[in-house]
Amino acid sequence: MQFTSQIVEKAVDALSGFPGIGRRTALRLVMYLMKRPESEVGSMAESLIKLKTELQFCNKCGTVSDNKICGICSSPNRTEKQICVIEDFSDLMALEGTGQYKGLYHVLGGLISPMDGVGPNDLNIESLVQRVSEEKPEEVIFALSATVEGDTTMYYLGKKLEPLNVKISCIARGISIGGELEYIDEITLGRSLLQRTTYTTS
Amino acid sequence: MQFTSQIVEKAVDALSGFPGIGRRTALRLVMYLMKRPESEVGSMAESLIKLKTELQFCNKCGTVSDNKICGICSSPNRTEKQICVIEDFSDLMALEGTGQYKGLYHVLGGLISPMDGVGPNDLNIESLVQRVSEEKPEEVIFALSATVEGDTTMYYLGKKLEPLNVKISCIARGISIGGELEYIDEITLGRSLLQRTTYTTS
Repeated sequence: MQFTSQIVEKAVDALSGFPGIGRRTALRLVMYLMKRPESEVGSMAESLIKLKTELQFCNKCGTVSDNKICGICSSPNRTEKQICVIEDFSDLMALEGTGQYKGLYHVLGGLISPMDGVGPNDLNIESLVQRVSEEKPEEVIFALSATVEGDTTMYYLGKKLEPLNVKISCIARGISIGGELEYIDEITLGRSLLQRTTYTTS
Repeated sequence: MQFTSQIVEKAVDALSGFPGIGRRTALRLVMYLMKRPESEVGSMAESLIKLKTELQFCNKCGTVSDNKICGICSSPNRTEKQICVIEDFSDLMALEGTGQYKGLYHVLGGLISPMDGVGPNDLNIESLVQRVSEEKPEEVIFALSATVEGDTTMYYLGKKLEPLNVKISCIARGISIGGELEYIDEITLGRSLLQRTTYTTS
């Protein structure tokens, strides 16, 4: 691409650094910004900077927070009997969106992945073990991705938590609601057959 | 989406204002930014602000520029005999990418579109008429989109430029290079049949 302006080129370079955004899309975004009022572009830029300067992480569960303790950990409406272990705060938002969970969370900050150079010490695992031994929840729920990395992390966490005598569970894996059988991959289908649940009409 | 941080929510709101970027994608971009160094996020924010505060438009052709006259208009290697009329500076970049054009440009800043409330007075049309009558180029080339808006704009410009006795041309419309005949829409195919060109083997 040949630019007639260094300023435009730099903005395109910056935006095309985002995952999934190439230079053509970045150019479209820049052209959009050029047509917006200066105040709007300014407040967007400010909100991005604040992500690095003002954002904190909850001292208890590790999710993003504007305070030292997040709104979920400090809420009187949440039960401390359950701790749900998740990879990142976006998973917390997804789970909150279901409205099915009233316990607390623990954000690992990633999954064990030797291929990407992520080991157990890079994640918030020690703090989880400490939390479980101190707060003594009734149940620890693993809500991790159904990938090799998720399974590896679950296995490692399971070994770490076993001595603490806490009930450990893992969210169900099986066919999606609304999924048509003929289009489901064989591994998922086979596993959902093995882990079938009792069906009652009542 | 339920956010545990206002700062994250505001950043997601800001980024999801971009065309084609929903809240889920915006969240992914925010999570990417959170993992980048503060200096990188800062320089990205700065480059966006500069789009509104420092960017100029060439006084002659209207494209984005860091100076009062852009690099193309001030270049001694470009011929002043041709003026290519385009919608926006991204079209200029596309045309420069072909390496087939050595003339000057004129950026309209949009197309006539009554549906969107864009009339001739909202575009750089008067400056084009003035330029043609003063600079007396040999040819004005319309390189506008093959849409209703593009055709409307070409018709209007054609009427405006007719009295100035300048040769007016329009970039060729037809089947794309590499296009297979059976997949080409009927209107394009019909038109490319009507506007067929002489074929020689030499």
